[in-house]
Amino acid sequence: MRIVRPRAACAGPFCGPDTGKAAAGERCAADRAVPRRGGRRNGTEPAATDRQAGAEVHLISLNSGEIQSMNQDISPANRYRVDRTVDEADAADYDALVLPGGTVNPDRLRMNQQAMDFVRAFFEQQKPVAAICHGPWSLVETGMVNGRTVTSFPSLRTDIRNAGGNWVDQQVQVDSGLITSRNPDDLPAFCATMVEEFAKGERVRQMTTA
Amino acid sequence: MRIVRPRAACAGPFCGPDTGKAAAGERCAADRAVPRRGGRRNGTEPAATDRQAGAEVHLISLNSGEIQSMNQDISPANRYRVDRTVDEADAADYDALVLPGGTVNPDRLRMNQQAMDFVRAFFEQQKPVAAICHGPWSLVETGMVNGRTVTSFPSLRTDIRNAGGNWVDQQVQVDSGLITSRNPDDLPAFCATMVEEFAKGERVRQMTTA
Repeated sequence: MRIVRPRAACAGPFCGPDTGKAAAGERCAADRAVPRRGGRRNGTEPAATDRQAGAEVHLISLNSGEIQSMNQDISPANRYRVDRTVDEADAADYDALVLPGGTVNPDRLRMNQQAMDFVRAFFEQQKPVAAICHGPWSLVETGMVNGRTVTSFPSLRTDIRNAGGNWVDQQVQVDSGLITSRNPDDLPAFCATMVEEFAKGERVRQMTTA
Repeated sequence: MRIVRPRAACAGPFCGPDTGKAAAGERCAADRAVPRRGGRRNGTEPAATDRQAGAEVHLISLNSGEIQSMNQDISPANRYRVDRTVDEADAADYDALVLPGGTVNPDRLRMNQQAMDFVRAFFEQQKPVAAICHGPWSLVETGMVNGRTVTSFPSLRTDIRNAGGNWVDQQVQVDSGLITSRNPDDLPAFCATMVEEFAKGERVRQMTTA
């Protein structure tokens, strides 16, 4: 896959600054810059980065309309238009998946069977998947983290290890097309690595669980 | 233990209506009634119930001052005064522990080593523990759910099973002094069972993990 108008699916807005709360299970087109935090510069959101690299990005949610993102899980931030609902979406139409963070939205996302089937399909179709912050809960829920080396928001460490994953404390971790990062401070490294991996078409290993 | 002025420690305000968000790791003294939701009556919070039954309840948090509770993880609700911080608290001073829900606060709580040591101590001292909603994440984090039959908010089901727990979909589940419920709608059953178990002094089984 090359970043020449590939289609990327992105589930839910991003953690920390711009933390998605309301709808769970979205393909993300978070097209606003990440607000400053701790001195970091704006403009580093994964979906925006993918778009800048030439990708067509869809925000997919459980429900149509708009989703409300939250700063630090608390303060309402930007709203984003949903491009497609999970039940309308087919992983076969996309080349890659981004699973953004936030605490509440990934928690709700993992309870939706259609959303989890959608996530699992990217692994079955050996397509790249990028997840940041609490986004990797979907990898735990689908069993796709089993045998993989990943990072995440530290609260997920035990859940990932219990699910058979090898948790590491890295700014960004790549394991055969599975790209993970810990928190919003990692966004620059996460976005750069994601585009690189999506562009070179690294394949996600086949399903690692029964 | 009888509910004749025993001391109960309670970590964090409650899920759903009155969801704690800000401070993680609190002994709870949520002394306000639970707002109406879905037609349920007010006044069913665990801490309030324990108090009505004669218990002295302390709200313990990571930081001193007040904690802000949230409705449905989104809207600010009541504020509660912190009685003691985790580093000031000693499980030996208490007869029982309540781990309330909310999504963000139990997620933050599990990252605090002192808070998790405090939770684990109740199991080591064979004291009753009650957890509702996302509260059982602390049981996952400490390994105390291993071999136990529990319920929780459904998003924790996979995490609990991966941690060796037997997850059941019950309004309230009791396993040798470990009382668990799923969500705020279960509060009446949770509170009644909690008081009953705390009162009869059922002992939590000794640590089930290495």
